[in-house]
Amino acid sequence: MTAQLNARGDVAVLVPAAGAGLRLGPGGPKALRLLAGEPLLVHAIRRIAAAGSVRAIVVAAPAGEVEAVQELLAPVAPVTVVAGGAERQESVSLALAAVPAGVGIVLVHDAARALTPPQLIESVAAAVRAGHPAVIPVLPVVDTIKEVGPGAAGPADSGPPLEVVLGTVDRAVLRSVQTPQGFRYDVLAAAHAAAADPLTDDAGLVEKAGVPVTCVPGSELAMKITRPLDLILAEALLHVS
Amino acid sequence: MTAQLNARGDVAVLVPAAGAGLRLGPGGPKALRLLAGEPLLVHAIRRIAAAGSVRAIVVAAPAGEVEAVQELLAPVAPVTVVAGGAERQESVSLALAAVPAGVGIVLVHDAARALTPPQLIESVAAAVRAGHPAVIPVLPVVDTIKEVGPGAAGPADSGPPLEVVLGTVDRAVLRSVQTPQGFRYDVLAAAHAAAADPLTDDAGLVEKAGVPVTCVPGSELAMKITRPLDLILAEALLHVS
Repeated sequence: MTAQLNARGDVAVLVPAAGAGLRLGPGGPKALRLLAGEPLLVHAIRRIAAAGSVRAIVVAAPAGEVEAVQELLAPVAPVTVVAGGAERQESVSLALAAVPAGVGIVLVHDAARALTPPQLIESVAAAVRAGHPAVIPVLPVVDTIKEVGPGAAGPADSGPPLEVVLGTVDRAVLRSVQTPQGFRYDVLAAAHAAAADPLTDDAGLVEKAGVPVTCVPGSELAMKITRPLDLILAEALLHVS
Repeated sequence: MTAQLNARGDVAVLVPAAGAGLRLGPGGPKALRLLAGEPLLVHAIRRIAAAGSVRAIVVAAPAGEVEAVQELLAPVAPVTVVAGGAERQESVSLALAAVPAGVGIVLVHDAARALTPPQLIESVAAAVRAGHPAVIPVLPVVDTIKEVGPGAAGPADSGPPLEVVLGTVDRAVLRSVQTPQGFRYDVLAAAHAAAADPLTDDAGLVEKAGVPVTCVPGSELAMKITRPLDLILAEALLHVS
């Protein structure tokens, strides 16, 4: 059944999904890799469409797959599909240009975080609505984190030199960043117009523009599904999400 | 069937498992939480015993549970169980004192990393054997990492102030640290004798003593099982590990 979006909603969600994503194995964009028989992108769009404030969803697909992605998503939710660019930021810019007039809040979401719950989408949007110009969902860093550098070869090593620890990082002040990242429309548009580094994340662009970025609690379900093992984990999570 | 350890092995593995570990829910030490019907500690010990270089395993259990843990582990592998201390480092010191003479390599392992494959245990031990005095298994940091600080309350906020981003951290030089951490026996013993901060990880103690710490590649299977969701993930991993 096709979901309906909220015609009075104030949120557009952009999903740049034009990447090649070879990390899940060869053959096709990672957003189209299958989880429990359905592409990650389908899982992601279904949950975005279930968030009550969402008025529009714009997917940037590989240039050669716009029609195929349109057909794939038509039964899931009303989605605008545009051709993406070579770099992620170009895809976000192209998707941003397709956002309908009057939308005040733009979220940028990663299709690889396919199990992100609608509640997290609403929580990011709500923080932007409350006056924060840029909002990211974050989780504490659980593992000990070390800073490393190249090491000398060990006494009996034959392989390449192993890395050595330069120091222990205070993880109490570190946060692991998820998506969706939320922005006031004008803030994201201005940051993209000024963007020089195509590899920076969206919040990073906004940060460089001097705009404060605010954190809200993320969700363990919003994990990024990139490595083959992640698919096994994600299948297990499907039963609780 | 009880595993046999290698009487000619050069490795002792210490497992400090005296913590309360409330994060997996109330009632009992986290090392005794059940995964697929067996305590995490049993899963961990079974894999340690399967590593060919291991001559001795020493578990530090809660003081009131030494006998119960002995009974639990007797069918799994020959394990020495000692009473642990209030802090993790105290438990490591108490376990270290029970290492048989002649063992040159000591690994400290976390029972919460219950699915750590024997190959990783061997790989850490091999790097110590090759001449590195301290060795930790690490994984790259996958998510974007931000440094945060306390923020001011937002314009329409009623709750506590949300954190704000202070900067984006270069994750290319960061590594997420797992266990087992491996040491030359004398290096770990000296670091513990000099330890002032009971909350520092073992490699951190050695680092502070000025000893170089070397990194080897970790394993996704060595994930820490602490949150309730981790148990679901771990059950899924059991079928591939």
